[in-house]
Amino acid sequence: MRDILEAVAAGDLTPAQAEAELRGYATGEAGRFDAAREQRSGVPEAVYGEGKTPDEVAELVATAVETTGRGIATRVDDAAVAAVRERVADEHLDATVDHRERSRVLIVRADDFEPPDLDATVGVVTGGTADAGPAGEAEAIAAAMGATVERVHDVGVASIVRLLDQVDDLRDLDVLVVAAGREGALPTVVAGLVDTPVIGLPVASGYGHGGDGEAALSGLLQSCTVLSTVNVDAGFVAGAQAGLVARAVDGSN
Amino acid sequence: MRDILEAVAAGDLTPAQAEAELRGYATGEAGRFDAAREQRSGVPEAVYGEGKTPDEVAELVATAVETTGRGIATRVDDAAVAAVRERVADEHLDATVDHRERSRVLIVRADDFEPPDLDATVGVVTGGTADAGPAGEAEAIAAAMGATVERVHDVGVASIVRLLDQVDDLRDLDVLVVAAGREGALPTVVAGLVDTPVIGLPVASGYGHGGDGEAALSGLLQSCTVLSTVNVDAGFVAGAQAGLVARAVDGSN
Amino acid sequence: MRDILEAVAAGDLTPAQAEAELRGYATGEAGRFDAAREQRSGVPEAVYGEGKTPDEVAELVATAVETTGRGIATRVDDAAVAAVRERVADEHLDATVDHRERSRVLIVRADDFEPPDLDATVGVVTGGTADAGPAGEAEAIAAAMGATVERVHDVGVASIVRLLDQVDDLRDLDVLVVAAGREGALPTVVAGLVDTPVIGLPVASGYGHGGDGEAALSGLLQSCTVLSTVNVDAGFVAGAQAGLVARAVDGSN
Amino acid sequence: MRDILEAVAAGDLTPAQAEAELRGYATGEAGRFDAAREQRSGVPEAVYGEGKTPDEVAELVATAVETTGRGIATRVDDAAVAAVRERVADEHLDATVDHRERSRVLIVRADDFEPPDLDATVGVVTGGTADAGPAGEAEAIAAAMGATVERVHDVGVASIVRLLDQVDDLRDLDVLVVAAGREGALPTVVAGLVDTPVIGLPVASGYGHGGDGEAALSGLLQSCTVLSTVNVDAGFVAGAQAGLVARAVDGSN
Amino acid sequence: MRDILEAVAAGDLTPAQAEAELRGYATGEAGRFDAAREQRSGVPEAVYGEGKTPDEVAELVATAVETTGRGIATRVDDAAVAAVRERVADEHLDATVDHRERSRVLIVRADDFEPPDLDATVGVVTGGTADAGPAGEAEAIAAAMGATVERVHDVGVASIVRLLDQVDDLRDLDVLVVAAGREGALPTVVAGLVDTPVIGLPVASGYGHGGDGEAALSGLLQSCTVLSTVNVDAGFVAGAQAGLVARAVDGSN
Amino acid sequence: MRDILEAVAAGDLTPAQAEAELRGYATGEAGRFDAAREQRSGVPEAVYGEGKTPDEVAELVATAVETTGRGIATRVDDAAVAAVRERVADEHLDATVDHRERSRVLIVRADDFEPPDLDATVGVVTGGTADAGPAGEAEAIAAAMGATVERVHDVGVASIVRLLDQVDDLRDLDVLVVAAGREGALPTVVAGLVDTPVIGLPVASGYGHGGDGEAALSGLLQSCTVLSTVNVDAGFVAGAQAGLVARAVDGSN
Amino acid sequence: MRDILEAVAAGDLTPAQAEAELRGYATGEAGRFDAAREQRSGVPEAVYGEGKTPDEVAELVATAVETTGRGIATRVDDAAVAAVRERVADEHLDATVDHRERSRVLIVRADDFEPPDLDATVGVVTGGTADAGPAGEAEAIAAAMGATVERVHDVGVASIVRLLDQVDDLRDLDVLVVAAGREGALPTVVAGLVDTPVIGLPVASGYGHGGDGEAALSGLLQSCTVLSTVNVDAGFVAGAQAGLVARAVDGSN
Amino acid sequence: MRDILEAVAAGDLTPAQAEAELRGYATGEAGRFDAAREQRSGVPEAVYGEGKTPDEVAELVATAVETTGRGIATRVDDAAVAAVRERVADEHLDATVDHRERSRVLIVRADDFEPPDLDATVGVVTGGTADAGPAGEAEAIAAAMGATVERVHDVGVASIVRLLDQVDDLRDLDVLVVAAGREGALPTVVAGLVDTPVIGLPVASGYGHGGDGEAALSGLLQSCTVLSTVNVDAGFVAGAQAGLVARAVDGSN
Repeated sequence: MRDILEAVAAGDLTPAQAEAELRGYATGEAGRFDAAREQRSGVPEAVYGEGKTPDEVAELVATAVETTGRGIATRVDDAAVAAVRERVADEHLDATVDHRERSRVLIVRADDFEPPDLDATVGVVTGGTADAGPAGEAEAIAAAMGATVERVHDVGVASIVRLLDQVDDLRDLDVLVVAAGREGALPTVVAGLVDTPVIGLPVASGYGHGGDGEAALSGLLQSCTVLSTVNVDAGFVAGAQAGLVARAVDGSN
Repeated sequence: MRDILEAVAAGDLTPAQAEAELRGYATGEAGRFDAAREQRSGVPEAVYGEGKTPDEVAELVATAVETTGRGIATRVDDAAVAAVRERVADEHLDATVDHRERSRVLIVRADDFEPPDLDATVGVVTGGTADAGPAGEAEAIAAAMGATVERVHDVGVASIVRLLDQVDDLRDLDVLVVAAGREGALPTVVAGLVDTPVIGLPVASGYGHGGDGEAALSGLLQSCTVLSTVNVDAGFVAGAQAGLVARAVDGSN
Repeated sequence: MRDILEAVAAGDLTPAQAEAELRGYATGEAGRFDAAREQRSGVPEAVYGEGKTPDEVAELVATAVETTGRGIATRVDDAAVAAVRERVADEHLDATVDHRERSRVLIVRADDFEPPDLDATVGVVTGGTADAGPAGEAEAIAAAMGATVERVHDVGVASIVRLLDQVDDLRDLDVLVVAAGREGALPTVVAGLVDTPVIGLPVASGYGHGGDGEAALSGLLQSCTVLSTVNVDAGFVAGAQAGLVARAVDGSN
Repeated sequence: MRDILEAVAAGDLTPAQAEAELRGYATGEAGRFDAAREQRSGVPEAVYGEGKTPDEVAELVATAVETTGRGIATRVDDAAVAAVRERVADEHLDATVDHRERSRVLIVRADDFEPPDLDATVGVVTGGTADAGPAGEAEAIAAAMGATVERVHDVGVASIVRLLDQVDDLRDLDVLVVAAGREGALPTVVAGLVDTPVIGLPVASGYGHGGDGEAALSGLLQSCTVLSTVNVDAGFVAGAQAGLVARAVDGSN
Repeated sequence: MRDILEAVAAGDLTPAQAEAELRGYATGEAGRFDAAREQRSGVPEAVYGEGKTPDEVAELVATAVETTGRGIATRVDDAAVAAVRERVADEHLDATVDHRERSRVLIVRADDFEPPDLDATVGVVTGGTADAGPAGEAEAIAAAMGATVERVHDVGVASIVRLLDQVDDLRDLDVLVVAAGREGALPTVVAGLVDTPVIGLPVASGYGHGGDGEAALSGLLQSCTVLSTVNVDAGFVAGAQAGLVARAVDGSN
Repeated sequence: MRDILEAVAAGDLTPAQAEAELRGYATGEAGRFDAAREQRSGVPEAVYGEGKTPDEVAELVATAVETTGRGIATRVDDAAVAAVRERVADEHLDATVDHRERSRVLIVRADDFEPPDLDATVGVVTGGTADAGPAGEAEAIAAAMGATVERVHDVGVASIVRLLDQVDDLRDLDVLVVAAGREGALPTVVAGLVDTPVIGLPVASGYGHGGDGEAALSGLLQSCTVLSTVNVDAGFVAGAQAGLVARAVDGSN
Repeated sequence: MRDILEAVAAGDLTPAQAEAELRGYATGEAGRFDAAREQRSGVPEAVYGEGKTPDEVAELVATAVETTGRGIATRVDDAAVAAVRERVADEHLDATVDHRERSRVLIVRADDFEPPDLDATVGVVTGGTADAGPAGEAEAIAAAMGATVERVHDVGVASIVRLLDQVDDLRDLDVLVVAAGREGALPTVVAGLVDTPVIGLPVASGYGHGGDGEAALSGLLQSCTVLSTVNVDAGFVAGAQAGLVARAVDGSN
Repeated sequence: MRDILEAVAAGDLTPAQAEAELRGYATGEAGRFDAAREQRSGVPEAVYGEGKTPDEVAELVATAVETTGRGIATRVDDAAVAAVRERVADEHLDATVDHRERSRVLIVRADDFEPPDLDATVGVVTGGTADAGPAGEAEAIAAAMGATVERVHDVGVASIVRLLDQVDDLRDLDVLVVAAGREGALPTVVAGLVDTPVIGLPVASGYGHGGDGEAALSGLLQSCTVLSTVNVDAGFVAGAQAGLVARAVDGSN
């Protein structure tokens, strides 16, 4: 602890970084940021944008950049993105802002941030354009954890030949996130064709009975092939779980 | 009406047959039997065995044989089958008893009964042995309505190549009943491969969340391909609906 | 394949048409369009308008027109309709735009498109004005598949005499789509009166417990007469399933 | 109060009757019996047999006979009936035991009990034999409250002509209890044909989605005609509510 | 029929009135109006305002006034009210417009309309201000059917003494509609205190689990006292059912 | 730790007691017993009997007696009770076995066990005999934690006067557990009359929609008065929560 | 009663105060205000702001201040706050307005109002910022009832060490309200560590299956530790229940 | 294919083995056995014992042994185990039968079967004895796939210190299956402490609302830490998914 305090005194550590080191989290106006999460659980802490004001998102992202070199936010709207950009400019942070509009993910990296790099591959498979949002979220997080991510899209079961053409490629990957819109049959069919672990990602498409992803979710839980699942639209969780498997494959956990 | 009464007087019609002609149903100890159902709606009246005593089943089946030449009962247990056999023997009915144990269907035909015969084919497709009961019920009813029924079994999506081998045969049929156990993906995949109408039949297999056929049912309702569905384990309804389509194809309705 | 490429070289095929022929789908900015769907499964691919931007709808409809001669979109709003009209004008497509406001269906036909024509009839039956949207969607699709469609409306069970007057007409049709609003009793009553196959179409009217079409759906699944069902408000699926039956009756599958 | 106690002293009142008069309920080994219920709310207190031991049922019925001249039990099994008969014999009660096997209702009347008699009629309407149990319970209670009860059975909507023949009779009654099995369409159709108040009684028939009476219940709640409903299989409640209406018609409340 | 046509020729009947007499319903631009409903089922046809355009509401109300002398609409918004007022003015209808803002009911009466008048009383009981909308709807309909309606409000069970003070008054009425907000205990408590038939009216207040009236509805169905229920917020149905009981009490059905 | 080991060596502590002291739990054949629970969380560890074999229950109860002087088991059947009695006899435990048949609770106390004694009162209130099981469980646990428990029974809302007579007594208690059968109105009514904290205990009585205690539970959650609740039939939890409040009142936590 | 009326005549009591004394509630334009609630049940009456107009909120709060010296409103929006402030200004009420924006609670106190003061402590514990609204509501009510409230925040189970550091402090409090967002594990973990009564407060965070607080609520009901719960987001109820326990601890009930 | 047929002719392959090689599945009396499943998808085919007769289980297990050298059955009862043992004896199979009673798993291995062996570890973590069945199933399958399995039991969150002691060991494993009984908090807490991928396994313990594992399942889906889940009691799926991750870690897929 003495070392940390001396580093602060010497200006080598900001107070925020020091607090993060000592207490495991940093305190800002918008709440406490769990700066030690990545070190402890292998998953970078991400700011869930929905239900937070633009200022709160910007505050938490800035704290993340200051304490861990990188800030990730999910489900951001345009106002939040603008607030983050403004904050980065105002505080003269040496950082780049990467906004993926379709998947609503925002990643800010300090210029000296060294991203993790794993010797492992993650596939993200979708049936159609309705899956793009959650699948993109999964892709962004798995990549942020250091995996090489391959995207295989538009292989829905309504036209199964396209999927069959991709089987050999899918078998070469280390772990798959497979999106499940409507009735959610795609992950079941994929898991019957490959020996790669499949993480199902139900997507809130569809309408009427079983809509909002409930049919897909229950289909994944009842699948006659082997797979595990996450909640509806939980792209972050699916991508991070794939990232944890990639870390295990890489031997880094 | 005069004709009918004279036929009764002459012994050419039993009173039960006469009542059925005149009122559209026949009265027995166990309730009224809708003898005109087949003529009116194209579907033979069937006795639903569950929740009825063996005597009630036997009584209703005997009334059906007397008034329409054929009696059909579904979901019968051993006691009901024995009661029907005893009744047929006791009343010296010139009839044969056909009991399909796996699908729990019982059909009694008077020796002079002329079954309908349609120039149309119905396919009944299953993924595994758990689908045998409801699928067998569907098969029995469609056949009783006069369709030629072909059974395609053990083509579950966990091993999709077997299904692909059958696609050409499936395209040649006039209408398909496709069973849907567990997550219920099979009818969706089939309907994407053929231009035959598909009637999904959810089966109450599986356990936990979405068990008892609920996941399969909601999957059929959300299917990204075109199909209609019946209730869980409603083999009779699926088979009869296929039979009605077969009648339309045959031109007999 | 050589033929196709030579046709492209000769200008007889656009590149989009060639891709559709060769790969079974065409790639545009808004995703892949399954151009072979109609040929493979008998049902024209339709663009589901909800959740897509006007530009995406216009892009996909234009691709459909280019590759198959016809583009169908469902659940379109005014902005999407405007975008499609503008696109047709901009690209000088020789095509007519048909927009059915109540059912929110949009059909664009190239001037040289020859629609299918089936020797089979589909009835679309409604109980009241609340059923107009989904019923109109069903009507549009069945007609697009080549069936002759008859609309029988305002025959709700609250005033059953009007329905009874229509029974003979209903019996003459090959297949019926019957809308089911509120408690959904209409398809059950109809199916008891005719020997035509009935496809129930639950409609999301009503409020409170069992509202949003859930009461109607469960009533269709529990019906004491023979019918199959589609999901709540799934007019496209009901109409297409009726179209598939009409194709079977016509002998074209 | 003095009068009551003097009547006890004189032997004109048993202690149980006195307690019932004074406190509104009588205490026995199996709990307190609400002896004043009929006087206060117009509905005779009935013992719900399920989940009680035969002895408890017998004890409570005997208390009811002693304090109010009549004891009613619903959902009784054979053991409970035997226990009540034994109790009546053992205690030399001057009472007759009336057991309705199908509806599982048991009514014990003291010989000097004067049943209420209302100038009002209640109709109990069923679609098929599966409705017999709850409908019989409703019939028994409405009759016990003094109404003249007419039973109209086997008029299910699958064969609607039989119902139409009964409409004039149904319009002549003061209030109707209409059973609703499977999809529960019957009360809706009846209420559209008559100007008599209809109380829907959902019955736990059916299977799969919406089974156990849930489809029927939600159909009643969403009915496009005017009616009120009770819980699934709540024959006692439906009959008693009809009895209360009959009392209002009679002018006795 | 000849009489009706001659009356039209003589100008004593409008064509709309004639059509309503002959066919039981009148056709307008916004659909068919069931003009015979009141005569057949005792309940005036009402236009359900939600999901209809102002013009449709105005059209249907005007048709009702023309054919039956009175038009009732429920769940109307301000635009619909304005459209009706304008229509009445434009067509110089000799009619008064009565709009109850809180309960969103609109009643238009032709000046020569003679409202029904029953010798029977209906009580409408509420626990708090949140019940005002549905209760007002019930009150309006019961009154329109001719009953004398008494409103007893703010007697929620959280402060039960106020209810106890009203018991004698409640016992004097012929039938009660009792609103059930939040946990819905009020109708149960009332039904234990009176011998008047109670119709429970669940109200969509509350939040979280069991919110939107579901807790109240299930509480009414499980009530340990005798009552029947209608759907959540179905004030029209509750009031009309009370009106039907009032008609039975009056002897007019 | 040395002390404990020396006490074992000296025979003052059994090995089981020593393990419990040192590790916070004791290991037996049927699993680990959380011997420190009472000390840590104020609630005695209890063995949940359902789903365990008689031997497992006996083993765990014996371990509890050895390590804490008392063993409590809930939801025990006759076989489990017999197994416990045999075990106590076989091992010559100086202990008394207290079995409450109705509430299925079993308490074994070593002869030298000194039960806790709190200066606080808990009321357990029921509406009828169906509530006896869970209410008895609550009573037993609250008493075992040292509270003085008063039982107020048969005060159901169907006959509300009996409850009103008890209000003054209820206000004198420190905390109330109020059972909620059927529609669950009783705790709401009680909480409106007293200023004592009320813990609602939903009971799995009732049938049909909202049966198995779900209506009561949702009614408690939506209550218009202030109370908290536990799960359906969770008598142990309700009693223990009341016991914790009693401890707080006593000042012993 | 004479005293009260004389006090009114003398100007010592306003008519509103007199009515509240005599009838237990005060009548205003927006409904009746239960002025005796606090005296009878220990909980101050609060105005639930959602679904009420700003004027109704202002009216009811003003009545509360006039009759009890304090007015509390929950779930108020900005318009309601403005209306209250204007009302206080307009009527020259000697009162201070306290608005807590995050928890949407508004408290108006007359200058001579003496708040209750209890010798008891309530802890309000949260896992993250998403819990702030309901937790703040609980805090405000418990404080208004006189308890000393301590807030312990940001101790979510994703980073459990922070919680462990607070255990000793939590054990010193008299009763805890513990918020439960997402999966709702926090109250279960807390209740296993302390001997203080825990009231779980599920919060409507999360998305997909089990979202809107349902997962948290069911987790609280199934907790393997002892706690009771309130409905989702029912911060008022949780805080008031904690206040009632605090009153019991203080000895003031 | 010629080779295989010659090997059959030479007696080096049984016909069953040959069919399995050629068609990917073997046909027996009880259905088709997917012999190629392990090769294709990495997971050994297992016979789901529930709903199958003892003879069907024995037949399918024997086919598995013949075609793949090993037969696995889950959820077997005593009769099925006896049938398998008898079959092995009757057919003189050189095989050992391994029956795990608690987890109801049966594994038959031919004496010359060489089990897979992975350089990867799987942890199976339970909170209490109620989790033993599904956890044992997971353990058996993961081990059968070649992983080294470590079992960590009785670390439920009600006594969290025991879990904290195991954190370092848990971090050393490659993938964890964590059982989730009752409220299902354990996997969430574990996943916050380790950087190993966690697969949640909900267990059908608990009662009342959220019972049968539904609370645990929804808690896993809402978890505030990163994990994926399988269906309730799906021990086979959880274990096989862990086995697939172990294969990826080992590099064998």
